[in-house]
Amino acid sequence: MKIRYFDHAATTPVSEKVLNEMLPYFNIQYGNASAMYSLGRQAKRKVEEARKKVADAIKAKSKEIYFTSCGSESDNLAIKGVCYANKEKGNHIITSKIEHHAVLNACKTLEKQGFRVTYLNVNENGFINLGELANSICEDTILISIMFANNEIGTIQPIKQIGEIAHKNNIIFHTDAVQAIGNIKINVDEYNIDLLSMSGHKFYAPKGIGALYVREGINFEKIQDGGHQEKDKRAGTENVAGIVGLGCAIEEIYDNFDEYNKKLLNLRDYYISKLEESGLDIKLNGDKVNRLAGNSNISFKGVNAGELLLALDEARNLCICRLCM
Amino acid sequence: MKIRYFDHAATTPVSEKVLNEMLPYFNIQYGNASAMYSLGRQAKRKVEEARKKVADAIKAKSKEIYFTSCGSESDNLAIKGVCYANKEKGNHIITSKIEHHAVLNACKTLEKQGFRVTYLNVNENGFINLGELANSICEDTILISIMFANNEIGTIQPIKQIGEIAHKNNIIFHTDAVQAIGNIKINVDEYNIDLLSMSGHKFYAPKGIGALYVREGINFEKIQDGGHQEKDKRAGTENVAGIVGLGCAIEEIYDNFDEYNKKLLNLRDYYISKLEESGLDIKLNGDKVNRLAGNSNISFKGVNAGELLLALDEARNLCICRLCM
Repeated sequence: MKIRYFDHAATTPVSEKVLNEMLPYFNIQYGNASAMYSLGRQAKRKVEEARKKVADAIKAKSKEIYFTSCGSESDNLAIKGVCYANKEKGNHIITSKIEHHAVLNACKTLEKQGFRVTYLNVNENGFINLGELANSICEDTILISIMFANNEIGTIQPIKQIGEIAHKNNIIFHTDAVQAIGNIKINVDEYNIDLLSMSGHKFYAPKGIGALYVREGINFEKIQDGGHQEKDKRAGTENVAGIVGLGCAIEEIYDNFDEYNKKLLNLRDYYISKLEESGLDIKLNGDKVNRLAGNSNISFKGVNAGELLLALDEARNLCICRLCM
Repeated sequence: MKIRYFDHAATTPVSEKVLNEMLPYFNIQYGNASAMYSLGRQAKRKVEEARKKVADAIKAKSKEIYFTSCGSESDNLAIKGVCYANKEKGNHIITSKIEHHAVLNACKTLEKQGFRVTYLNVNENGFINLGELANSICEDTILISIMFANNEIGTIQPIKQIGEIAHKNNIIFHTDAVQAIGNIKINVDEYNIDLLSMSGHKFYAPKGIGALYVREGINFEKIQDGGHQEKDKRAGTENVAGIVGLGCAIEEIYDNFDEYNKKLLNLRDYYISKLEESGLDIKLNGDKVNRLAGNSNISFKGVNAGELLLALDEARNLCICRLCM
């Protein structure tokens, strides 16, 4: 029986092409990318090829990409790394109340260490208010961290304008783009982004690999100590297969971006319109226009979300329709 | 042409069995282990099976195992995590001068944050002195971190006695066992170990996955903020395929431990004896007896190590012997 998987915001399967690209790096070209001999140099070369693919996808330079183990690590490295490196300039951070826990809890840790954090409100559709953002800026604000698109309701923030406000005030701008990569064409210069977090398993690369873009010239401290990997910003033997997978996945998804995005948009709108026509008492949460192509977030009046989830999970074992057989 | 790979201390290829076990978790059972529906629960079940395999291998309990992204992360989490959680008891750490950089540099970071670190000397063969260790203990010593076996010269420290000294003084004992796992049968109770770091890619699991054992009752703080994965001690979507690989690899290597270890020992001693017979002016570094079965570290008088490495790398393209054809 075929599963109809509707939770790509949680994780995606690894694409066939990505898996095939990764396979040799497990047991044939298994060299340590920090080793001097040819098996190591081959691994290093593939790591750098993948770095270029990630950089190309967001119109950055290769040297601005750092591989990490996941989106959460990228967020931690971005936020703590920037704050520790710039604490002599100030100790104030601005973020929003609907960030991913990796951002919110990194901020909570920084608060315990003496940093001050402003958590911006969002309106009914999940948007921050640019006026409130501008008013929150203080003399000692060093970092603004606002997610590109929300993981629950898919709301896409006005990133370009947020970046403009940040840069006008000489403040560093980080965005958690874990949900946006693969769904939005991102040019870090046009969007005024200084740091950007991504996670491979949200766009058909495997779990256990992420990346952080850091604009050249932005100071940040490493948070995982050890060897000098990743230009001395992230210690630990390079996950070569995962890195190769990340590079392949981001290239694959942006090579087919328009077609993929159009398909997703059509499916999303078809799904929402069918539910709206059904006569069920539903509410679409989030914005109708500025939302991720692959996202729909719907409340069914009087129905507990967890119970509905489990009922749908069970239903696939009961369904006898032509599609499920 | 067959490569004769002599750098298993740097990294190992993924074993065939391990790779086959991992494969379905990339694109068939690709669920997020934190998801409530069956695809997620299946992934969670495999994560817990792997956790039990890791625990069984070192005679620990499943709930004492935390998955990380690598050995360096395990070391950082162990050392910083214990120090942050126990700083009200004291601020002194004891380690050795020949630890891996993940330990040494985590200690350097802690020194900048107000902790005091004693770096124990080692003798010619790489052993710490137990008397010096005992004499270094102060009222405010909270952590002793000594590696199980050295990554360069393979020296195996007197771990059991180090643990005894630690526990007699109510000090927490961490060991970086990244090089030891797979080469030594470890029982964390017998060896008096409170925390133990391991890295999958050193014993035929993939790169990008590690684990940390923490004895029940030992307080430590998480260092990567975000979600509540790994009993709220390590945020980030679980690397299910990597975790399955780690569990499979540690089971495979300990199931065949005696045979594998004997073969390694014989090969190592054959290699060393042949070099000794050769008339070359060599020196075996490290201890003859208390060293890892798979380790030999040899200086060739008057020969630069880096040049020799590259010459050996080149030689495999020139060799016309029966073995290499």
